[in-house]
Amino acid sequence: MISLEKKILAEGKIGEGDILKVDCFLNHQIDVNFLCEIGKEFYNLFGNCGVNKILTIEASGIGIACITAQFFNCPVVFAKKSKTINISSDVYVTRAYSYTHQCYFDVTVSREFLGPKDRVLIIDDFLAKGSALEALVTLTKIAGSELVGAGIVIEKAYQGGGDALRKKGIRVESLAKIASMSPKDGIRFI
Amino acid sequence: MISLEKKILAEGKIGEGDILKVDCFLNHQIDVNFLCEIGKEFYNLFGNCGVNKILTIEASGIGIACITAQFFNCPVVFAKKSKTINISSDVYVTRAYSYTHQCYFDVTVSREFLGPKDRVLIIDDFLAKGSALEALVTLTKIAGSELVGAGIVIEKAYQGGGDALRKKGIRVESLAKIASMSPKDGIRFI
Repeated sequence: MISLEKKILAEGKIGEGDILKVDCFLNHQIDVNFLCEIGKEFYNLFGNCGVNKILTIEASGIGIACITAQFFNCPVVFAKKSKTINISSDVYVTRAYSYTHQCYFDVTVSREFLGPKDRVLIIDDFLAKGSALEALVTLTKIAGSELVGAGIVIEKAYQGGGDALRKKGIRVESLAKIASMSPKDGIRFI
Repeated sequence: MISLEKKILAEGKIGEGDILKVDCFLNHQIDVNFLCEIGKEFYNLFGNCGVNKILTIEASGIGIACITAQFFNCPVVFAKKSKTINISSDVYVTRAYSYTHQCYFDVTVSREFLGPKDRVLIIDDFLAKGSALEALVTLTKIAGSELVGAGIVIEKAYQGGGDALRKKGIRVESLAKIASMSPKDGIRFI
């Protein structure tokens, strides 16, 4: 998505520790008009797949998922992150690893909101090593839902998480795929 | 907002510990079409106030804020919750108390995204004792922004947080105001 690549180049900042900061439009301040363009693009990609539920994970996935869901005319479910082990029996739970915070956390969804009748599109802002996305994929499996695919705004392709999931047969569509990134050479897209 | 009161009565559940569970449409699964009605109503209330930024707090405020921002044609900024004291100098920070988790947490916003040019509408899903809302009000003050008011989806009016803020001169508009709530007698609105 050319307009997204342009926006990343114009407004994104490369921070320490291989961080791409896009918090001016995507995950702290949110440019809602631009999110509409992103939602439309996801609809172009997955609009004919019979999606009836969008699954994301708190917090920064929620805005993107909600705007995208308007095009699909379906509800959003956001998975919750938790460090507690005090999980009740009415939720599906799996684990993910946060490379940012260097710890495992539980990812949960109420059984009530994900089940065999759901054709699920996963939406998230970033895909790097893929731990959060794998957790969401696992939740759809446990719930017996049909996974249509995953729509990602920015994939750090050089970290391999996206291709690992594609190899497992999961359709992963990323609107911007970063081939390499460094303060010295800037950002290159695939 | 009559349709919201009806939805709360039809789909909400009163849980233990004075909890109103509306996670089937508001804060776990999100009924995006209904959120549009909510966003329109906030626009009816605050549309003529020159709002140019919507401020909310992660996680469950984000979806409501993003859908509402489409009507105001302005960006969203979501404040972040953090337990760390490792706050950098480029953020505004204040504290709030979580009655659910019974602990204090820091609420932060990057200085970059809130300032004297902003006319801010705060949006959140719930207002009970008002600790989170007070924190957002404090952040707008520290940032030198103009606070237009706060739009709340559900106010537990009997907990007093809303009226305490109104007494300070802040315009707080809640789309459903709960007068009392119990498993025995159900929910009564003001």
